Amino acid sequence: MTSQDVLFRLARRGDLPSMVRMLADDDLGSQREQYENPLPESYYSAFEQINNDPNHQLIVAERNGEVIGTLHLMFLPSISFQGGLRAQIESVRVDKRFQSQGIGGEMMKWSMERARQRGAHVVQLTTHKTRLDAHRFYERLGFKGTHLGMKLELRQSTEKSL
Amino acid sequence: MTSQDVLFRLARRGDLPSMVRMLADDDLGSQREQYENPLPESYYSAFEQINNDPNHQLIVAERNGEVIGTLHLMFLPSISFQGGLRAQIESVRVDKRFQSQGIGGEMMKWSMERARQRGAHVVQLTTHKTRLDAHRFYERLGFKGTHLGMKLELRQSTEKSL
Repeated sequence: MTSQDVLFRLARRGDLPSMVRMLADDDLGSQREQYENPLPESYYSAFEQINNDPNHQLIVAERNGEVIGTLHLMFLPSISFQGGLRAQIESVRVDKRFQSQGIGGEMMKWSMERARQRGAHVVQLTTHKTRLDAHRFYERLGFKGTHLGMKLELRQSTEKSL
Repeated sequence: MTSQDVLFRLARRGDLPSMVRMLADDDLGSQREQYENPLPESYYSAFEQINNDPNHQLIVAERNGEVIGTLHLMFLPSISFQGGLRAQIESVRVDKRFQSQGIGGEMMKWSMERARQRGAHVVQLTTHKTRLDAHRFYERLGFKGTHLGMKLELRQSTEKSL
């Protein structure tokens, strides 16, 4: 099989277990996710929120009726760059059984074309410094690692407000 | 004067010229922005779009009725981290005349508290690798530079579709 047998489309609610399975299936993801049956409700409520927001698109790669890749494409309006629209990509995963077959690259290109069609002037993403294979993967697609990506974890009080 | 004389609040349409002036006022920004009177319409249409989206907040710092700082706080729903909400900060600027007085740090802390109240589990940002002062500024606030930030510029055809 080749990557040409793969279909890219917007995710549906029923794709969520496959998507979470892929998010959970690596060193960093396994510490963050809770892949179980049924999935924790928080995944479904996030899905609904994302799905109802025209600035967010969850993308999946499907082959033979099976979801084997996913990414989250978002559009960020901005004042900077003369009010230019940015695209951002997060949570890129390809099922481990089907990696190194070009599927991730095709999924990225398909999503980048969606971003271009929408009028975004840039696509941005961050990737953990330890994911060296990912750096090379994105560089092959034309991305340049010009920025430092910084994060700060927020402590939530037990009672969430707002 | 101290940073205690500074008020932080959501930006209004009338703040836009001050905000663009600050965005334009550095080496990278001067190549991207068009600070003129009146401002190009694209800034105003981006402002309206951002202002109408509950997941976006443009913040300004005001002192004596003058806007002297700005940042863009956004909330990004996500499937990953069990459907966890992320906050992202972009376009952070303090007027050059008032830098190194703690205003940027206070503006960031004020915005991070808003993100915590909203329920975000993380605040993320990227900063150009050449902005070494910015790296130290964010590290002092508790940010860790764990990620590589990658960008790809999209070529737009003259006629924008969608």
